[in-house]
Amino acid sequence: MLLPQTFSPFDCNMMQRCLHLARRAEGYTSPNPLVGCVIVREGKIVGEGYHPQAGQPHAEIFALRQARDLAAGATLYVNLEPCDHYGRTPPCSRALIEAKIAKVFVGMVDPDPRVAGGGIDRLRQAGIETIVGVEEAGCRQLNEVFIHRILTQRPWGVLKYAMTLDGKIAATTGHSAWVTNPRSRHRVHRERAIADAIIVGGNTARKDNPRLTTHGVSSRNPLRVVMSRTLDLPREANLWQVEATPTLVLTRENSNPPMRDYLRDKGVEVVELPELAPDAAMQHLYDRGYSRVLWECGGILAARAIATGSVQKIMAFIAPKIIGGSHAPSPVGDLGLNLMTDALPLEQIEVTQIDADLLIEGYLSRNSHSQ
Amino acid sequence: MLLPQTFSPFDCNMMQRCLHLARRAEGYTSPNPLVGCVIVREGKIVGEGYHPQAGQPHAEIFALRQARDLAAGATLYVNLEPCDHYGRTPPCSRALIEAKIAKVFVGMVDPDPRVAGGGIDRLRQAGIETIVGVEEAGCRQLNEVFIHRILTQRPWGVLKYAMTLDGKIAATTGHSAWVTNPRSRHRVHRERAIADAIIVGGNTARKDNPRLTTHGVSSRNPLRVVMSRTLDLPREANLWQVEATPTLVLTRENSNPPMRDYLRDKGVEVVELPELAPDAAMQHLYDRGYSRVLWECGGILAARAIATGSVQKIMAFIAPKIIGGSHAPSPVGDLGLNLMTDALPLEQIEVTQIDADLLIEGYLSRNSHSQ
Repeated sequence: MLLPQTFSPFDCNMMQRCLHLARRAEGYTSPNPLVGCVIVREGKIVGEGYHPQAGQPHAEIFALRQARDLAAGATLYVNLEPCDHYGRTPPCSRALIEAKIAKVFVGMVDPDPRVAGGGIDRLRQAGIETIVGVEEAGCRQLNEVFIHRILTQRPWGVLKYAMTLDGKIAATTGHSAWVTNPRSRHRVHRERAIADAIIVGGNTARKDNPRLTTHGVSSRNPLRVVMSRTLDLPREANLWQVEATPTLVLTRENSNPPMRDYLRDKGVEVVELPELAPDAAMQHLYDRGYSRVLWECGGILAARAIATGSVQKIMAFIAPKIIGGSHAPSPVGDLGLNLMTDALPLEQIEVTQIDADLLIEGYLSRNSHSQ
Repeated sequence: MLLPQTFSPFDCNMMQRCLHLARRAEGYTSPNPLVGCVIVREGKIVGEGYHPQAGQPHAEIFALRQARDLAAGATLYVNLEPCDHYGRTPPCSRALIEAKIAKVFVGMVDPDPRVAGGGIDRLRQAGIETIVGVEEAGCRQLNEVFIHRILTQRPWGVLKYAMTLDGKIAATTGHSAWVTNPRSRHRVHRERAIADAIIVGGNTARKDNPRLTTHGVSSRNPLRVVMSRTLDLPREANLWQVEATPTLVLTRENSNPPMRDYLRDKGVEVVELPELAPDAAMQHLYDRGYSRVLWECGGILAARAIATGSVQKIMAFIAPKIIGGSHAPSPVGDLGLNLMTDALPLEQIEVTQIDADLLIEGYLSRNSHSQ
């Protein structure tokens, strides 16, 4: 029987440093993972780096470049198993061997079962002592999106909504500006900054005329996606201003050729899918290399996204106010659940107070919704 | 200009002890306030007491009885100004003077503007040094219900509801057992134990067949109140079992004489009001000496209670689960608010985690709803 391994505080600190470095590239690495690397010699960091973007060198390479000759005989920490294949860059396992690294601490093995362990085996065959599992929970959390992508061949979906304490995302009239306070909205802009794409439905595009940008929180903006069966969309909208950041409209084949052509003339990308459903949209975004998708849609589309397994995590902002309305818009439409005991439970709940607002985050259990 | 007073840690501790003692009678004192009293001599407590119930002696009298001769020359702490009138008991001010108390610390003056300060004046005229305002915020909070009763001649209303993270109090079918976890429901039973009355509407009585008891959390149960215009109520229901605890049905004049007589035969009290509205119900409960009323009704009645100024505080339990449903029942029905900016803000928000559930409590601003 294997006993759970324990690691020294120093090793844990160095792995935490890797995670910290990795996070600097949040939002930029898709479809690649977030990876940070630290090289240590006699208790001192002599090199560190992170993977900044797909197509750029991996974290280990930056750390080795910084460490130079000091890498020989040193210990290397990296939150994800070093790659062992030729992709857009040569394999990191070979670079470590060539640099004569003596010992390697790996946070977690590659989640892809087809390659998992290959990099570690290569290092061990070369005589490098390789230890796996330092701060593994933190490493898995950091790359939950990447792991999901690898294991399911789908992007990771986050459903974000903002509601009053009586459960409404808008007044009965549809008016919704604003439910939450400015700091909560800033938190949403930060979430957009690390997303690859944001999806809304035609209703939201028509009623709220959103921008769906990061509003200066980041120089980066995610792809803005509108799902619309009919293309019954306004001719003028903030989303059609694509100079700063592009917009993709997903619709059905030959749904509305005049509007399709009008939007294309404006510079908006229009893609016609055989079937316009949340899972088809997610498949399309996966094929484009996207990993993290933020659903900022109304309740009807949110329910369809949940029902098709396109939502892994929920971010619910709750403002301490009462708007009332028996038929005011609700954050999640019909799921066909008739008994309260059938409600979908959220796991790993985290609660954050943002001034007087609350942010409640949780994961949809993998088995609790139809796939 | 008066500078804010500061008090010694010892004096603050003694006043906190008064609040602690006073709380022992929570739920039992209506329409009287919660009062605790401590008598101290040479840094030691020589007597203490609290007001256990309307008709029983006041807190000061119990403390004096315990202190006996040691009261002469001692310091007395009490969270509310001692009374100076003959009610069901003789005035406490005179009892303090007769016992030769040397110094008195009072938490807050009597909130009734017609009598405020009379007890303090009487003590000072008798040469007793009397200091007002120790731990005043805590004293006001403890008796918020009593203060509201005195100042508005209405009971204090608390709206309690339990909803899913997507803002529903039941599935679209109406099924609602249970939204929250057992510990949250236990918390509700504790809230019932300190309430004088619980109000539900006919819908809740018909659909949920509730008991509205404290389920063993306390030997005390509040009066159970059903508001029903039509008396279109089930003939058999848990609420008609009045051996353990009584039920009051409020309806309109001559609404449904056969059902009225049927319920009366079962031992249920039926009162016909000229107009059946939340504020009329609150007036009726005020006239009966009730101070703390818990609204455990559905969204339509909850909205009418809010709109008529019958709700001062909201207790929202939120369970981390998603039930879905565009038209599933909502905790608060129509308030006629068309813009999100008109939503009623809650103040002094408190958030408590109860296992994975959340309890969010807050006060409706006094000026934010129609009166």
